[in-house]
Amino acid sequence: MGESFQCGGFQAAGVAAGIKSNQDLDLGVLFMPDSAAAAAVFTRNQVQAAPVQLSTSRLAGGTARAVIVNSGNANCCTGERGLADARTMVEATARDLDIDADDVWVASTGVIGAPLPMECILEAVPKAVGELRKDGFEDFARAIMTTDTRPKLVRSTGRIDGREYTLLAVAKGVGMLRPDMATMLCFICTDADITPALLQQSLTSAVDRSLNRISVDGDTSTNDMVLAMASGTSGVRVSSAEQIEGFGRTLQDVLIKVARLLVKDGEGATKVVEIKVRGADSDEAAFQVADTVAHSPLVKTAFHGEDANWGRIIAAVGRSGVAMVADAVDLYFDDVRMFHQGLGAGAEAEASATQVLKQPEFRVTIDLNQGTGQATMLTCDFSADYVRINADYRS
Amino acid sequence: MGESFQCGGFQAAGVAAGIKSNQDLDLGVLFMPDSAAAAAVFTRNQVQAAPVQLSTSRLAGGTARAVIVNSGNANCCTGERGLADARTMVEATARDLDIDADDVWVASTGVIGAPLPMECILEAVPKAVGELRKDGFEDFARAIMTTDTRPKLVRSTGRIDGREYTLLAVAKGVGMLRPDMATMLCFICTDADITPALLQQSLTSAVDRSLNRISVDGDTSTNDMVLAMASGTSGVRVSSAEQIEGFGRTLQDVLIKVARLLVKDGEGATKVVEIKVRGADSDEAAFQVADTVAHSPLVKTAFHGEDANWGRIIAAVGRSGVAMVADAVDLYFDDVRMFHQGLGAGAEAEASATQVLKQPEFRVTIDLNQGTGQATMLTCDFSADYVRINADYRS
Repeated sequence: MGESFQCGGFQAAGVAAGIKSNQDLDLGVLFMPDSAAAAAVFTRNQVQAAPVQLSTSRLAGGTARAVIVNSGNANCCTGERGLADARTMVEATARDLDIDADDVWVASTGVIGAPLPMECILEAVPKAVGELRKDGFEDFARAIMTTDTRPKLVRSTGRIDGREYTLLAVAKGVGMLRPDMATMLCFICTDADITPALLQQSLTSAVDRSLNRISVDGDTSTNDMVLAMASGTSGVRVSSAEQIEGFGRTLQDVLIKVARLLVKDGEGATKVVEIKVRGADSDEAAFQVADTVAHSPLVKTAFHGEDANWGRIIAAVGRSGVAMVADAVDLYFDDVRMFHQGLGAGAEAEASATQVLKQPEFRVTIDLNQGTGQATMLTCDFSADYVRINADYRS
Repeated sequence: MGESFQCGGFQAAGVAAGIKSNQDLDLGVLFMPDSAAAAAVFTRNQVQAAPVQLSTSRLAGGTARAVIVNSGNANCCTGERGLADARTMVEATARDLDIDADDVWVASTGVIGAPLPMECILEAVPKAVGELRKDGFEDFARAIMTTDTRPKLVRSTGRIDGREYTLLAVAKGVGMLRPDMATMLCFICTDADITPALLQQSLTSAVDRSLNRISVDGDTSTNDMVLAMASGTSGVRVSSAEQIEGFGRTLQDVLIKVARLLVKDGEGATKVVEIKVRGADSDEAAFQVADTVAHSPLVKTAFHGEDANWGRIIAAVGRSGVAMVADAVDLYFDDVRMFHQGLGAGAEAEASATQVLKQPEFRVTIDLNQGTGQATMLTCDFSADYVRINADYRS
């Protein structure tokens, strides 16, 4: 697995610093020997963790030479001490790599409100730096996990004028669809040659159509961060409108794959469900309906029970706040139409729909039949395991 | 228990019609021999069940002589047939009571999308009418239950000029705090003498400060209905501004008690938690914060785990969409201050807070320290049982 997850101009490592009590990897470093253009999207939560505040200050510079990330502790609600600790992490990394501290970004994920165990971290930074290598991304991916059950890496390639560039994304998951306290971190490496401004434009647009369709606009945790870095070592330049569009599409495809991995590994999740809304008056209205359905605990528990309970979905559609004619709404499980002209489709359709729900992945389509607006969201089912994981997470 | 739950001018009954497969009571009737003034609040869901549509048409008349209610089937998304069935239920009740069908209200609760088993119902209506009696309210309360584990009745009295009147509320519960598909039904009987218009004014205001603080404005199920009926048999007239205010206060107190019963019996709930937000710029802003915290699955699972995880609460406050200074926020579990000036209060406070969370009922106070706006919501914890109940509800 290791060899395929590489990207020109990037080295990675992950080590066990002892922040997690179980000896798992918990400190990761990325290093770009020749620097990289950088762009980022941060949480819109008004409570922002110290590393988010510090990394936000790196954005204006538009470059990155290293990233230091710990899991097991979010360094959030930790006051002045938290900011000082984040700075110390950055400075230790810069010192060991012999680079400028202003070129080092930082991220943390884990429990809110406890000070970072700085002694462990400072001891582990040189160890992580010493282990940096081109094929270290899987270790890095493991080092940023919290309740994730699997490391999450997606690699893809694009072409410009016949020459290939690589995109490699490493992410850690969300507790649930709506990443509440559960931080979402995503680091995207590319060897394409692109300016920070164009990278930012591509990133913002791609995140909006991928990761923001599993989390919700504005509904992010205290630590969420998506960082894109371009080393340019492939020599493939992204500058014309057409090239930017192609790069943006490749980036979006990668982030949609990441989004799917995140949902699939949602806490306690056993199913990935695509909620597709069409026929709305606007894309925004369609999103509002999809969002209401995708977050309904009653809908999500019905998915878990493999129960083709279209009534719960219709009830969620009806309370979404979007004006509609209830009798005009059509509802499908994959291709099985379950609701039409105000009525359920009956026992035969229900039997077919139950087969659809037995699959690990399926689609619910809701057609409002009143306009051309559409939106898609990914959600997962809601299991008793979710409750167990989150009732016991800190203990 | 039976004798205390009476109200002058009202008779009640509950029978087993066979709508529920387990032989539990599932058909209830209320009868007001001398008619009653009536006022009601209905779901704001755009998908409205047939009985809601029919009962809404009774509102203009302002009177009620009977109410027929079934559980086990919501008669929702049942098209023209559903409306015809609701009308047939009403007509059968009117016939057996020898009253005008226009004075009969109807409500249903249960699964969406299946036609009512009219044969069972029509067979049971005369039986229910035959069992009407003054102390039949507990049977009626049982007959309207779905996943409720207990019948819900609250009785209280008020005084005007030294003369007593009675208020008796019977309710059925919500699946969860946010009554999604889980219908909330509440029937309020009083022997006070009040006009339909004043009763409506008192009801709307009291519901807004009680039942709407467990559900959310506009976020009601397809079948929700709160019906208030005043027989006037006590001879206590409610007409002056002062009398109206007193009556409204008594009604609000009753509905706050009902709200508490509903939350306490939330599916799988083991704890009732009051979320009090103060110091906001407005009451609306305070409500928005309370609402976000009260509905967060991560906060609710932490309550279940008796984990004083103030970080999850602060994260929910931060994403509520209300502008605030994060470092100015104070957070308390009962009287234990857990978060102040951007920092957690440490191990000692956490130990005290853990004791607070071990109680079956406690309060979380969030002070934004920026204004005088405040709001309170009731929520419950979120248990693995909730998932089990809702994944298996239809099967």
